[in-house]
Amino acid sequence: MSKWARLVKTTYCDPLGVERTWESAERQTRPADCTIDGVGVVAILNKPTGAELLLQKQYRPPIDQVVIEVPAGLIDAGETPEQCAVRELKEETGYVGEAEQISPVMYNDPGFCTTNLNMVHVRVDMSLPENQDPKPELEDNEFIECFSVPMATLFEEIKRLEKEGYAIDARVGTLAEGIELAKRLKL
Amino acid sequence: MSKWARLVKTTYCDPLGVERTWESAERQTRPADCTIDGVGVVAILNKPTGAELLLQKQYRPPIDQVVIEVPAGLIDAGETPEQCAVRELKEETGYVGEAEQISPVMYNDPGFCTTNLNMVHVRVDMSLPENQDPKPELEDNEFIECFSVPMATLFEEIKRLEKEGYAIDARVGTLAEGIELAKRLKL
Repeated sequence: MSKWARLVKTTYCDPLGVERTWESAERQTRPADCTIDGVGVVAILNKPTGAELLLQKQYRPPIDQVVIEVPAGLIDAGETPEQCAVRELKEETGYVGEAEQISPVMYNDPGFCTTNLNMVHVRVDMSLPENQDPKPELEDNEFIECFSVPMATLFEEIKRLEKEGYAIDARVGTLAEGIELAKRLKL
Repeated sequence: MSKWARLVKTTYCDPLGVERTWESAERQTRPADCTIDGVGVVAILNKPTGAELLLQKQYRPPIDQVVIEVPAGLIDAGETPEQCAVRELKEETGYVGEAEQISPVMYNDPGFCTTNLNMVHVRVDMSLPENQDPKPELEDNEFIECFSVPMATLFEEIKRLEKEGYAIDARVGTLAEGIELAKRLKL
């Protein structure tokens, strides 16, 4: 039996009063009092050479590929999105940070599944002693490799990584597209 | 029985040689010869007052909310992502456009499901007669309302729309975040 994911058949009335059904998928892990499944973390490392986005390479069994992702994780019962982001960042990358901004709730694929998250921007103070040689604290089924790429060339980097055989998570890809659009349109 | 979505249990070996299982969900609609489920469309309307992003409001049964999304749709057998984007844009919004750029394949939630898409940037020539009063050609189970918002204030707009009760699709939200980051970091 499934423990983590389940299929749901929804019945709804369309605007013309016609009763219709829709099949979708959902996580079984969302805490009872919570409206989100988890968070994604935008952590920008201010390096001498410029701002870099903290990313990770993680093998994802559903697609049998190593995926380029932002740090992310599922929310625990009683936790705020900000607390979840700071905890996941520490566990997955070793960096200590402070949540400074939170996005609207974003739905990953709302025609197909209910999964959603907040993107939390976490400030990482690179001058702190604990951020000089950060050590992840991974669970025994987590295999994650951290790296960072310059914000200004994120789009070129993900195109290169895709050519090398990595899969691109939608958050990383779309963030890169937003940056490109802002540059092109001089926003 | 389910027709559109299914659960899959995957068995894999982790890097230490331990056999593990993972539950995930997938669409049953992907054409046999195709590596993506569909496309999202970035269509920028050049108005006298500035560049605006074409968006839509669509009720999504899985989350029982009206979602702010980019035009999007599932790919047909034999279709390229570019052809799919131009077709979906015409059907869902009435606008006639030309595909000019395609993103890497992006995975919507690769720890949970296999669904993915290409974001296709479609150029819409606002001087064409057919784009003066565009008429969508919706299927009888589609109820979509189109609108557009200035690219420069996309992030503020989606925060306002969330407050009004709309759900935000991850592509729209993350694109807006990328634009904000580019502005803030002066990329």
